[in-house]
Amino acid sequence: MIMYGVAGGIPDYRKENKMKASFRWFGDNDPITLEYISQIPGMRSIVSAVYDVKPGEIWPEESIRYIKESCEKKNLIFDVVESIPVPENIKLGSIDRDELIEVYCENIRRVAKYGVKCVCYNFMPVFDWTRTQLDKMAPDGSTSLVMYWDQLNGLDPLKDDINLPGWDTSYTKDEIKELFVKYAKLGEEGLWDNLTYFLEKVIPVAEEYNVVMAIHPDDPPYPIFGLPRIITCEKNLDRFLEIVDSPSNSLTFCTGSLGCSRENDIPSMIAKYSAMNRIAFMHIRNVKILEDNSFEESGHLTKNGSLNMYEIVKSLVDNSFDGYVRPDHGRMVWGETGKPGYGLYDRAMGMTYLNGLFEACESVKGEN
Amino acid sequence: MIMYGVAGGIPDYRKENKMKASFRWFGDNDPITLEYISQIPGMRSIVSAVYDVKPGEIWPEESIRYIKESCEKKNLIFDVVESIPVPENIKLGSIDRDELIEVYCENIRRVAKYGVKCVCYNFMPVFDWTRTQLDKMAPDGSTSLVMYWDQLNGLDPLKDDINLPGWDTSYTKDEIKELFVKYAKLGEEGLWDNLTYFLEKVIPVAEEYNVVMAIHPDDPPYPIFGLPRIITCEKNLDRFLEIVDSPSNSLTFCTGSLGCSRENDIPSMIAKYSAMNRIAFMHIRNVKILEDNSFEESGHLTKNGSLNMYEIVKSLVDNSFDGYVRPDHGRMVWGETGKPGYGLYDRAMGMTYLNGLFEACESVKGEN
Repeated sequence: MIMYGVAGGIPDYRKENKMKASFRWFGDNDPITLEYISQIPGMRSIVSAVYDVKPGEIWPEESIRYIKESCEKKNLIFDVVESIPVPENIKLGSIDRDELIEVYCENIRRVAKYGVKCVCYNFMPVFDWTRTQLDKMAPDGSTSLVMYWDQLNGLDPLKDDINLPGWDTSYTKDEIKELFVKYAKLGEEGLWDNLTYFLEKVIPVAEEYNVVMAIHPDDPPYPIFGLPRIITCEKNLDRFLEIVDSPSNSLTFCTGSLGCSRENDIPSMIAKYSAMNRIAFMHIRNVKILEDNSFEESGHLTKNGSLNMYEIVKSLVDNSFDGYVRPDHGRMVWGETGKPGYGLYDRAMGMTYLNGLFEACESVKGEN
Repeated sequence: MIMYGVAGGIPDYRKENKMKASFRWFGDNDPITLEYISQIPGMRSIVSAVYDVKPGEIWPEESIRYIKESCEKKNLIFDVVESIPVPENIKLGSIDRDELIEVYCENIRRVAKYGVKCVCYNFMPVFDWTRTQLDKMAPDGSTSLVMYWDQLNGLDPLKDDINLPGWDTSYTKDEIKELFVKYAKLGEEGLWDNLTYFLEKVIPVAEEYNVVMAIHPDDPPYPIFGLPRIITCEKNLDRFLEIVDSPSNSLTFCTGSLGCSRENDIPSMIAKYSAMNRIAFMHIRNVKILEDNSFEESGHLTKNGSLNMYEIVKSLVDNSFDGYVRPDHGRMVWGETGKPGYGLYDRAMGMTYLNGLFEACESVKGEN
């Protein structure tokens, strides 16, 4: 039996009133080095994952240790995993799910051993996110990801050959069609059942190892091509949190994902869930909703999109949020090329903008 | 007689409660393009100058028009000049000063014609700023400008061959020594007299053409090598503003220059002068004062230096400041090379940090 050196309890994110600035790093293949990330003012934590194994496989300890030690050399802390992916067969409730869930739990134990406090994951069928274009150019020459309904409507994944940007290319077209059929049969309630089964096995392990599991909402938060989507709105987040009522069963609150539906009142939802200590990780970005409910990822500034970033940060600070914050998808600016949404420059500008909002809101709170 | 198309009056910077985000651009030779600057969220104004003529010469209208039109193509406004340099012979009160002041006034008329509302200048003898090293490396691998007394003490500019970084290389060593002798003879009161003479000629022209003259404080705000320094502290700023009591006779309030003296209470001075509508232009950066009063230019974040950036912004917002703000000197980060203090990356991060502070402070004010 392996003894894991876990110390301390589940963190109470309401306690310290200081958010933890973090930045996603895709490992040594990421063109953005840890040194560059460390030069962003106020940066604390690295959000990363083991990228050299497939979903459903055990993460080698040496890979986890390598991330931890690489971060420490640059005075950064590796304490957030994004993500340990949930295999489709767990989401579908297939016959091998117990085995896959045990692998999942072992990965939680392993990352905990190396200091990870928060694991981000999602329960979205097939695709992590959907956009119709990854490099839409704005008048200022910057580019960003967009989803335009007029590029999506009329397409039928069971009949047409669809190749939306960012869709998983590890599946063959026949495999994807088969998955669509299975999920259509499963439906939303079937997906809720399988999520419940997963949480009831996984959260006790997370609790034991002082890890917070932080589910990422569906992006966008409504059905696409008839695939069921359940982590989408306040009613469903309430339902999710009640399945296992534990601080280890929490949210990655992604303002951009939930915020591209007008029905979600983002600052009010953040206030509610941070007051409950059920937000472990904030993904903060802005999004501009268009008249037909298409959307464009925008610069982080309030006036660049549809979300009020001050209200978002104020909701967190008022509720003494001290979890992880990372600037989410940025535009591509200054001629940068790279992984769509994950350039250095605009995400770094997003982070320092958030630094300003947090510092001011925290100072005001301290004065009152 | 030339008729200049000037409309409107002297702006009252207390009126709108919205700062104007601006960025310095050194013209077509600047490796940072106007397009890049326009991609910084919330950017509005360009701060520039005509660089192809010497101090004391008339600025060609075509050069001014070229800057204006280049900015407009990128949806930016060229409305701040930094700077129209004041020739040494004006500061020294030499026999040709009337002629030089008339050239200065003509340049004010000319930039006003092309929409400039604010002219930054300084009245520092010989050197615009003094540092002992321009690329001091921090533990995170970033570099910045520093002034260390132990690198400066013991040097005598009249005896030693001193070549501090950033010193004007257009003078020969003999010319510099001659200037030192002249300024030593002039002294602080002589410099005040010559500044008064200059202001009494220039400010009426600025008033007529709806331009605010915004003097930059001395950097650092204490004597170096016995050269007189007068724009250094609250008492002297009061004296300066009383010389010509007009909103056209205002300040470029540079937090980093004034802030490297512990005696200057920066937020309180900003509150005072912005309440008087005598700050036209803010240069905002942080600075870390060391035990022996040496200093290092630091990242913009409050916790990176000795200045409280929240208090600085709050002082401005509380007094409804709506003048120009530019992020001042940044560090060099992410492998950038270029003009010391004037890289794109860290200044842009400084600007978005300021965006966050301003947005939060303005929102709080709006709520109250």
